[in-house]
Amino acid sequence: MSDSPTFSLNCPLPETDRDHVEMGHGSGGLLTHRLIEDIFRPAFAEAPEDLEHDGACIEIGGARIAFTTDSYVVRPLFFEGGDIGTLAVNGTVNDLAMCGARPIALSAGFVIEEGFPTSDLARIAQSMREAAQAAGVRLVTGDTKVVERGKGDGLYINSSGIGEVMTPQLVSPRRVRPGDAIVLSGDIGRHGMAVMAAREGLGFEPPIASDCAPLAACVAKLVEQGIDLHCLRDLTRGGLATALVEIAQTAGVAMRLEQAAIPVSEPVRGACEILGLDPLYVANEGRFAALVPAQEAERTLAVLREFDAAAAIIGTVAEGAGSVALQTLGGSYALDLMAGEQLPRIC
Amino acid sequence: MSDSPTFSLNCPLPETDRDHVEMGHGSGGLLTHRLIEDIFRPAFAEAPEDLEHDGACIEIGGARIAFTTDSYVVRPLFFEGGDIGTLAVNGTVNDLAMCGARPIALSAGFVIEEGFPTSDLARIAQSMREAAQAAGVRLVTGDTKVVERGKGDGLYINSSGIGEVMTPQLVSPRRVRPGDAIVLSGDIGRHGMAVMAAREGLGFEPPIASDCAPLAACVAKLVEQGIDLHCLRDLTRGGLATALVEIAQTAGVAMRLEQAAIPVSEPVRGACEILGLDPLYVANEGRFAALVPAQEAERTLAVLREFDAAAAIIGTVAEGAGSVALQTLGGSYALDLMAGEQLPRIC
Repeated sequence: MSDSPTFSLNCPLPETDRDHVEMGHGSGGLLTHRLIEDIFRPAFAEAPEDLEHDGACIEIGGARIAFTTDSYVVRPLFFEGGDIGTLAVNGTVNDLAMCGARPIALSAGFVIEEGFPTSDLARIAQSMREAAQAAGVRLVTGDTKVVERGKGDGLYINSSGIGEVMTPQLVSPRRVRPGDAIVLSGDIGRHGMAVMAAREGLGFEPPIASDCAPLAACVAKLVEQGIDLHCLRDLTRGGLATALVEIAQTAGVAMRLEQAAIPVSEPVRGACEILGLDPLYVANEGRFAALVPAQEAERTLAVLREFDAAAAIIGTVAEGAGSVALQTLGGSYALDLMAGEQLPRIC
Repeated sequence: MSDSPTFSLNCPLPETDRDHVEMGHGSGGLLTHRLIEDIFRPAFAEAPEDLEHDGACIEIGGARIAFTTDSYVVRPLFFEGGDIGTLAVNGTVNDLAMCGARPIALSAGFVIEEGFPTSDLARIAQSMREAAQAAGVRLVTGDTKVVERGKGDGLYINSSGIGEVMTPQLVSPRRVRPGDAIVLSGDIGRHGMAVMAAREGLGFEPPIASDCAPLAACVAKLVEQGIDLHCLRDLTRGGLATALVEIAQTAGVAMRLEQAAIPVSEPVRGACEILGLDPLYVANEGRFAALVPAQEAERTLAVLREFDAAAAIIGTVAEGAGSVALQTLGGSYALDLMAGEQLPRIC
């Protein structure tokens, strides 16, 4: 594999207007982090580890409950391999799984624009039902709001979820240690390219389908095997690179990734090259990275391969101060949080 | 009190287009019910009692967890007595309280329109912090999405919540029985009129402030007193009338309300008369109805009066088939679910 020129490893920092919210604030990358640090953390967080992971873990009546939320604003609503409904269920199921939890129940909050076709709403509700059944969770509570024509964009869905934490220890970026292995659950970039194709009317041949899928069964198997899961992270907005940089910064470690080990399918690679996108920053909805002690890497890989043959050990963790380096044939490059917005409204 | 002609007891059923979502589908009234029955219940509900109350109760690891969600699309974002942030916290806290639960943790999902002032966002985040502290809950997890200019309306917030159920028996419309008393926690109509005033630039004198407030402490006191709470319901979209009609229909009972017993402040009554609105259908954000056995009515009232001197016993439950009658000086009128949309985007 050549060191492709389409890998724009360090996006230039965009000019920003600090007084108003911009599209990049929703990217999951650098500007989202700034928004959280400047506005939400001072208002919400009581402890430094609050708001750092995909969900919160809370003890209630002796039970260890994971709790998470996500709003879905993907455009268009329907794409190859799924729709906003499958995304709303699987995205939230996966956030619970990333807390080491067994997902139990989801909520669904709909913000619908006046004039939205009820047939589309019924189709999306059916997708949610099927996705919930496949993931073994129940949709137990919901809410519907309607906004005037021109004040929404068809449909936004919020899905929050609760689950029971299964791991003896917290799964958290703060538990990542030098010596850990980084194991990737499958090939990357499908979801982002599927949404891009649907949005721009690009006819990739063969079509690229979203990888949107529930990850809870795979995580449950890792827990069953007694693997000490230091951190799990699904690779949504901002992709693999942003997810790992976030974890490296929180844990205060240096990561080193082998570019050649990171699986990218030929259709995704080709589409990314044509569009000038970097697959490391493209969103996934059914892929995650597991950070585990080195001696557990092979067992972790064996479990992940039961679910996806493309799973791979892609790197290692060393002493450091919050950096991720990508080792390529051409040298080593520092990866950063995604700056600006590569593909807006991907989830 | 005269039998005011502004009490439009049975709104005419609006013409509806069954193929597209209309504003009335978000009213919390008849059209919202149709949307839930036609689209969401077939897709989501596994048991008939699912989706009937303000939240779901689930047993996890031996703990009884209440779980609820609401999206907030109020317009304007700031009004007398609160803003979308106070509403998002108190509304979800109150839905948990209505399940007989002690609210523990909230999520916050923001859908922000490009160009939204960050100073407003910071002000709203601060309101959420203060409201959460006042209600004794923690904001533990969040999500931020940004949509393009013209594809939103400034800011929408989803807030989901979890709590621990405190009551020995389920608090549910299905437990309402003939003989129960209906106890109202305070005067009605303030929230709807406060939002209306802010939206339309109406300068009521004195200004009407929203009643937006957390109800959890009051419910905790009722539970402490050992009162058998058959059903609790906060009186949001669609107001007192819609809430009671929903409960009567679910429980299969007949309710009789005494108009003269229902507290409405003079400023709210005056504003409703000018605008041709019926206070029974105007939204509240800090009022609830408790349905309790008749012999517990006075004890319930005593607790409610500790929190609001205007609390009152307003009616009784009898054998029947899902009706609510309002007894006035001029006769008895059947109340119905709100048809259409009296005040859109009130929460």
